[in-house]
Amino acid sequence: MLDRIHIILVGTTHPGNIGAAARAMKTMGLSHLMLVRPKVLPNAESFAMSSGADDILQYARVCETLDEAVAECVWVAGTSARSRTIDWPTVTPRQCAGQLVAEARGAAPVALVFGCEHSGLSNDELGRCHVHVRIPTRDDFSSLNIAAAVQVMAYEVFVASSVDAEELPLSEVAGEYATAGEMELFYCHLEQVLVELDFLDLQQPRNLMHRLRRLYGRVRPDKNEINILRGILGAMSAAGAGRNHWRRDA
Amino acid sequence: MLDRIHIILVGTTHPGNIGAAARAMKTMGLSHLMLVRPKVLPNAESFAMSSGADDILQYARVCETLDEAVAECVWVAGTSARSRTIDWPTVTPRQCAGQLVAEARGAAPVALVFGCEHSGLSNDELGRCHVHVRIPTRDDFSSLNIAAAVQVMAYEVFVASSVDAEELPLSEVAGEYATAGEMELFYCHLEQVLVELDFLDLQQPRNLMHRLRRLYGRVRPDKNEINILRGILGAMSAAGAGRNHWRRDA
Repeated sequence: MLDRIHIILVGTTHPGNIGAAARAMKTMGLSHLMLVRPKVLPNAESFAMSSGADDILQYARVCETLDEAVAECVWVAGTSARSRTIDWPTVTPRQCAGQLVAEARGAAPVALVFGCEHSGLSNDELGRCHVHVRIPTRDDFSSLNIAAAVQVMAYEVFVASSVDAEELPLSEVAGEYATAGEMELFYCHLEQVLVELDFLDLQQPRNLMHRLRRLYGRVRPDKNEINILRGILGAMSAAGAGRNHWRRDA
Repeated sequence: MLDRIHIILVGTTHPGNIGAAARAMKTMGLSHLMLVRPKVLPNAESFAMSSGADDILQYARVCETLDEAVAECVWVAGTSARSRTIDWPTVTPRQCAGQLVAEARGAAPVALVFGCEHSGLSNDELGRCHVHVRIPTRDDFSSLNIAAAVQVMAYEVFVASSVDAEELPLSEVAGEYATAGEMELFYCHLEQVLVELDFLDLQQPRNLMHRLRRLYGRVRPDKNEINILRGILGAMSAAGAGRNHWRRDA
């Protein structure tokens, strides 16, 4: 089950940190590491810092985008140090770990995403996540080392994984959750239809897609539901084309 | 209250780890660092790794022995990766953090002790601790980086410190707990009397003092009680001297 919990590091600057993160993962039984646009690919320093977690580095997958890294995942949590302008469901490390473990008891992978050392995850990247997780710290000294953050989260996941499966809440949907890749296709479709409808002005987007991502992230549609939603989008698109056509005539 | 929770690193080999541990402490509001026989004193590498936790390194106290470092403390927890031949009260990081915080609400300091990178704490050092705390890990890859171990424990302490004091159990004793320094004087006295009584053979100690430390560590006498115990030892010593005298005569 722990092998379905993927750790994703986005834009990591120091290769030593990648190695230290691999070591932190391995002590806690996590094995799947993905690297999105690392500044430097894992090198000798990474292997030295991994202190025996070579296998994790060797099998680490490198991706160009976060979307690519989470495409197969049905639940994604992103770490965030700051509070953002837009509210997003925010959980504690313990709550996050409990849900990661519960979700990973299904068949599909889930992901826990960490941003780069200096600036964390971008708003865009955080918008790809179902929840944000904030490791509690002192207000005036909140910068954890990235491998230390991975260690804390991996520790909570390991502790949560030893809880009896019987005690965990059941899945909320009948079918299989849509994957992050399927959700991205839906969001593209949604955006395109909203533009067609003149509801969304890409020059002045005013956070609309961000708000809709938050809404549908909370909903967590299953595969059937996402097909229904896309069916509705198709119908809206057809009707909107008619309406716009009519409006332009008016 | 967090400033009464002292972090003690024993025999640390790498100065970079001392800096990383200071950073981990500072993010979680801990400020008191003590170093027992570090291989290298904090240096430029330590300060670089501390990433702004300079104050903690600057004020870190360096001691020759663990006894010296914990002398003022009324409760001491020691981290341990292995299981030992002699059972000792062993707690989870969460339980340990809860108790550290509860104890630190009193007036006297408490301590959390970490051993060196390669071998951890010695049996002798672990015998100075009221409880052992083991960070759960995979069985076949259990070696956490020392700064990562400090981070996990400091995180648990920080989380525990935000729990309402009303919810915490009350102290078990009427007066003030004896400090570790007062307990050491008691153990010295006890050992000396047991030798006088021919009950303890220092050539073949068979873990006797270790077992007695475990027992009295669990008891946690207050200052009055320790005075009573030492009074009894004085009386035993006087009587034992008479008895031995009598036996030798027989």
